[in-house]
Amino acid sequence: MNKKDKIVIIGAGLCGSLLALRLAQRGYKIELFESRPDLRKVDISAGRSINLALSDRGFKALRLCGVEEQAKEICMPMYGRLIHDRKGNEFSSNYSGRENEYINSISRGDLNGVLLTEVEKHKNVTLYFNTRSKKVDLDNATVYFTNYLTNKETIVKADVIFGADGAGSSLRKSYYLEKKFLFSFSQNYLNHGYKELEIPASKKGKHQISKEHLHIWPRGDFMLIALPNLDGSFTVTLFLSYNEGEFNFENLTSEEKITQFFEQEFPDALKLIPNIKEEFLNNPTGVLGTVKCSPWFYQNKTTLMGDAAHAIVPFYGQGMNASFEDITVFDEVLDQNLESWEAVFKAYQKVRKPDTDAIADLAIDNFHEMRNHVANPVFKEKRKLEMSLEKTFPTEYFSKYSLVTFNENIGYNEALKKGRAQDKVLLNLIADDSIQTKTDMTKPELRVILEKVKIETNKTLEEDKIARL
Amino acid sequence: MNKKDKIVIIGAGLCGSLLALRLAQRGYKIELFESRPDLRKVDISAGRSINLALSDRGFKALRLCGVEEQAKEICMPMYGRLIHDRKGNEFSSNYSGRENEYINSISRGDLNGVLLTEVEKHKNVTLYFNTRSKKVDLDNATVYFTNYLTNKETIVKADVIFGADGAGSSLRKSYYLEKKFLFSFSQNYLNHGYKELEIPASKKGKHQISKEHLHIWPRGDFMLIALPNLDGSFTVTLFLSYNEGEFNFENLTSEEKITQFFEQEFPDALKLIPNIKEEFLNNPTGVLGTVKCSPWFYQNKTTLMGDAAHAIVPFYGQGMNASFEDITVFDEVLDQNLESWEAVFKAYQKVRKPDTDAIADLAIDNFHEMRNHVANPVFKEKRKLEMSLEKTFPTEYFSKYSLVTFNENIGYNEALKKGRAQDKVLLNLIADDSIQTKTDMTKPELRVILEKVKIETNKTLEEDKIARL
Repeated sequence: MNKKDKIVIIGAGLCGSLLALRLAQRGYKIELFESRPDLRKVDISAGRSINLALSDRGFKALRLCGVEEQAKEICMPMYGRLIHDRKGNEFSSNYSGRENEYINSISRGDLNGVLLTEVEKHKNVTLYFNTRSKKVDLDNATVYFTNYLTNKETIVKADVIFGADGAGSSLRKSYYLEKKFLFSFSQNYLNHGYKELEIPASKKGKHQISKEHLHIWPRGDFMLIALPNLDGSFTVTLFLSYNEGEFNFENLTSEEKITQFFEQEFPDALKLIPNIKEEFLNNPTGVLGTVKCSPWFYQNKTTLMGDAAHAIVPFYGQGMNASFEDITVFDEVLDQNLESWEAVFKAYQKVRKPDTDAIADLAIDNFHEMRNHVANPVFKEKRKLEMSLEKTFPTEYFSKYSLVTFNENIGYNEALKKGRAQDKVLLNLIADDSIQTKTDMTKPELRVILEKVKIETNKTLEEDKIARL
Repeated sequence: MNKKDKIVIIGAGLCGSLLALRLAQRGYKIELFESRPDLRKVDISAGRSINLALSDRGFKALRLCGVEEQAKEICMPMYGRLIHDRKGNEFSSNYSGRENEYINSISRGDLNGVLLTEVEKHKNVTLYFNTRSKKVDLDNATVYFTNYLTNKETIVKADVIFGADGAGSSLRKSYYLEKKFLFSFSQNYLNHGYKELEIPASKKGKHQISKEHLHIWPRGDFMLIALPNLDGSFTVTLFLSYNEGEFNFENLTSEEKITQFFEQEFPDALKLIPNIKEEFLNNPTGVLGTVKCSPWFYQNKTTLMGDAAHAIVPFYGQGMNASFEDITVFDEVLDQNLESWEAVFKAYQKVRKPDTDAIADLAIDNFHEMRNHVANPVFKEKRKLEMSLEKTFPTEYFSKYSLVTFNENIGYNEALKKGRAQDKVLLNLIADDSIQTKTDMTKPELRVILEKVKIETNKTLEEDKIARL
């Protein structure tokens, strides 16, 4: 915990950059290593998600590090989902009944660039690009890097190593392979992969569909989504099974079949994606996986952070936000002035892990919800009711989505418990016809429903507690 | 699916032996490889659990293979738990209200010996000892073995390979390392380890405590258990944290501290374990882990079975039973005469995996229950009530324990869902004082309770279903 400790951060992606920035602000001496070239100079977006959803947990961390306003300048607000059915009908579903609650589409590269430029302003940070970590010698706190351009090996001895090297973390792999301690670890893949496509801007440089929504074409076993970019384009992502169903990534190998699939399932979207065939055949198919592990740290030498510790599927739009929140929480632990890095790492994991486990599970929940439930009548009725409750009782009712996305002072785990109980109660009350939902309900009518939901939710939570679930 | 296919089974433990036996009975040609010496000739129990609990799912598989009676001859029935408190008081808690429902303590080595001797009667099986699999070349269905005695490598090409090589499976490791497909995988360790100790037989060769019970000394954060052996001894197992609490495996390193720990926590047991100090210091500390993975198979070439596919913690006494049940289920799939080994493996995993996932989770439930809840008043009241319900309505009421342990025609997953819902309902009804439990309840009084539990359980299951939990 000496300010003279040599801190090595592996990975200058979103998490590693923000971590470096915060530790630099606190006066630590940092060497930050990135396997790729400087993304401000080279276009290296291929194969990675081009835009992401930034929301309140992310903003809180950016605010802590003094870069919130810079991020906001490149944000595109999305106020809700715009659902597209097979016939081309649209219906919108807001993210919240409160006006100031929305999520934002932001370019991964642009935001990463903002953070790197901020990091470079600090003299106590040295930044290396094109330097990939191959493995970490845990007992000696030493990283073995290979330079991407020269292929030369560099061996870097540190006092403390942070592995912010993403879902395929080399530090985490060293934990697994070195077997120095009991390392609990899971990697769980969905049977769905994803492929990115593009809706270009109109000839006048405008957005061709609403730029204020996250667009979804839910089709049960698969779905298409689209997020707006600043330049008028949309990044479209197809989520589809590798090998199940009539259409899947394994059998969509010919232009004819791809066209047939899109004409049948997404005719309106197809018209907007002029390069569908080339993009479909040339863009990589990405995997969707969840990684959990424990412990994150080894003695007073190393710890994992961000996706390296807790990679999640993208369906809650919380991957980046969770990684940024890591830095908020880590910073709070640093404020406790504990006696050693090991004590810091331990305290950090203790407070943080239940929340990162929870967001991993919530993201899987939303995978099912987005593909399927959004087109289910009970679910739609529930969302509509929740919007009315949030609008009418903005300080009293918070949906699961709102707890997770817009309530940055509640942990994900609390949001999961309360949110799931509330969802269960609402879905059951609607399915049983125990509450009447109609359009234009009066405040007293909604008040009756709110009180019922509150009582039943508390009862559900209490029952789970007694059963120790 | 040709009877001339060369089938290689890696591992002649309990699962591999029974699998070999069944496939031999069906007429397949098998080579069965075991890393250890022949346990009928050499004592190799060190470090592995010496006795195990055998119950109805295990018996069903043994019956299928014609070895049930031979197993029964070496069984020691245990009718319930005998709980020991710190003061030396005992209270018993039966496993079931039905007389014919009990579990059995059985020697792992003796049962494995029975199976090996049966296997050897089949000319279509060749058995190799001292031959350890190091890795499997998946595409070539080839196993790389090392002979334990000569250290020489043998390379065996097969048509089909079954990995029944336990929790540390070399086949599973090859799945992970070869990266030929998306391999979902988890290894989760408890922060508790275990150590085996012994209560020897009395001078007259008798059991010194009840031989008809599984003994438990639950102490919240840790516990001791004991299972009887045929020779009058008991195998005692201490489950204790590695590094948490006042006493743990990391700090119990001196004879004084070990004695102090046992005198304070298990004074009655201590008197019966004469070699406590040597045993504690010399016996290895075992790890407690859960392994889940998917897929279990690779094309038409390989599949995992038993602990290699689904290792679980020992707290439900179902590890061996689940592995044996694998063979029951696999045999049923073979009866379907599918077109290829791949189709068999796929159908087998589809029907089997929800159940092995469920028993893994149930075993973790019981870790908490055994350490803690068995001494909790609401839990004790619930168990007493369940015994009365089972006794009075033997065809109508089945506790979670009974569903899991004695109802071999219900899958673990169904047992989990129904059992957990029922537990939740009972614990809540008792905690709320919504049902009156007293000693000597009349049949009509119990009937009222039974009906209430049935209705509430169905309601709970229905509510979960609507919320898609």
